[in-house]
Amino acid sequence: MSATLRLTGATRLYAIVGDPVAQVRSPEVFTARFAADGIDAVLIPVHVPAAGFDAIAPALLAIGNLDGVLVTIPFKASIVPYATRLGRAAQCIGAANALRREADGTWTADMFDGVGFVRGAQRKGEHVHGRRVALFGAGGAGSAIAYALADAGARSIAIVDVDASKAQRLAATLSRAFPDCSIAAAAPMPDGIDMIVNASPVGMRPDDGLPAAIGPLDAGTLVGDVVIAARPTALIRHAMQCGCRFVDGRDMHGGQVDALMQFFAAAAPARRVAGATSS
Amino acid sequence: MSATLRLTGATRLYAIVGDPVAQVRSPEVFTARFAADGIDAVLIPVHVPAAGFDAIAPALLAIGNLDGVLVTIPFKASIVPYATRLGRAAQCIGAANALRREADGTWTADMFDGVGFVRGAQRKGEHVHGRRVALFGAGGAGSAIAYALADAGARSIAIVDVDASKAQRLAATLSRAFPDCSIAAAAPMPDGIDMIVNASPVGMRPDDGLPAAIGPLDAGTLVGDVVIAARPTALIRHAMQCGCRFVDGRDMHGGQVDALMQFFAAAAPARRVAGATSS
Repeated sequence: MSATLRLTGATRLYAIVGDPVAQVRSPEVFTARFAADGIDAVLIPVHVPAAGFDAIAPALLAIGNLDGVLVTIPFKASIVPYATRLGRAAQCIGAANALRREADGTWTADMFDGVGFVRGAQRKGEHVHGRRVALFGAGGAGSAIAYALADAGARSIAIVDVDASKAQRLAATLSRAFPDCSIAAAAPMPDGIDMIVNASPVGMRPDDGLPAAIGPLDAGTLVGDVVIAARPTALIRHAMQCGCRFVDGRDMHGGQVDALMQFFAAAAPARRVAGATSS
Repeated sequence: MSATLRLTGATRLYAIVGDPVAQVRSPEVFTARFAADGIDAVLIPVHVPAAGFDAIAPALLAIGNLDGVLVTIPFKASIVPYATRLGRAAQCIGAANALRREADGTWTADMFDGVGFVRGAQRKGEHVHGRRVALFGAGGAGSAIAYALADAGARSIAIVDVDASKAQRLAATLSRAFPDCSIAAAAPMPDGIDMIVNASPVGMRPDDGLPAAIGPLDAGTLVGDVVIAARPTALIRHAMQCGCRFVDGRDMHGGQVDALMQFFAAAAPARRVAGATSS
């Protein structure tokens, strides 16, 4: 993607912070979205060496013309102490992937990895409400997606992880936040499932198989996979063979861009005032 | 100016640091130059609130994909302690306006405000070598220009400042560095002058007059003015009336861009290796 943009002294900054950062797509995607929306802003890649994070993060947030930050691996948990306040998902999970500067200069952080997945499903006309989900992976992506699924009204979430205690801790945390959703650690493959989500790294390598022996699926099962790969993962191929609808890593990414643009824009009028004053 | 640029995760960063920063032209100018030279880099404005400089500056220099920094008001002296090494001009004057990352990650700083002026003159076919100069203003710009004029072989420099002790200190410092150039504080208007440079703020306001009662000028006198104004300053108008050649703030800015691109490029091959490794 290529965008014609005018970069001036008055251009506002957004940054994506990671280690490494050269592989991220957000600078292209968001800079084009800002241009399309008539916002004089760019999103720049900022490579923060992991050892320097605690020195660099607060200094970045003190830059006067920085209006927002995206956070990628390995900083989604480390960024939390530097936010002035946390949204509900970030507070529950203890990790965030986006921050915006408010009118008073403070920083609000929240986690959109899970919202992106739910929005990606909605953009394909699929619903999450009332679903009985088997979720593979209780790490960063799994935590965010489990939160978003519960928040979107999933009936139950069975969390499967090779580290059973990790799955149990996540289930306990989420159960407190969503008492109406039945959330528990589980062994594969739970019964009575009508949605499967892979949030584990299985599928990132071309020769990876399924995240578990999930067997044949009813065509009404919605299948999701966070992995962004050149070709469909084994799980997505299995879904297609079973006639299931699916949400893949690209759908999730697209859904997240929409959610993040809304998050950033929620502070926009105040930011414009601040920008005009400092000019 | 508008440039079509592709901003990706692998794009390298240059920053201009100032307070305020919205008025600077470097983001447009250098981003277009990088694009024209096939360099995947942008120059972003970074507003560093003055009170936060000492916390933010070292953190900025620790960003892994930042290859260069321009420094504007009020940080040209404050940046010096954060450089690993100083070029000759920065070392002599105690101020710098540019830093580049070397292959080993260290930072080299130097001062190009004066070089820009001398290059601006050269781009108009004018020479500085052998000139007997009256220089108005012994502040940041004046110091940088005095250094560059001496370095370019001026025969003498008479430094005029409303603060006579400031002019004397600058003359003493430069005399040690350039024993072959006759450098002294002076009162306006010194005799035997064939070059006049205004590096004082006089001329920034539309109703400003000349920096001193300089009288009629011989047409062979080269006149310079660092002020960048919408219309020619009183000094430049006076030069034109006397049939003198002149170098104005825009000429100086153009000369400096060339010098800075060379300064940044001097570390380029090593930076490319480092960039490939960190991807």
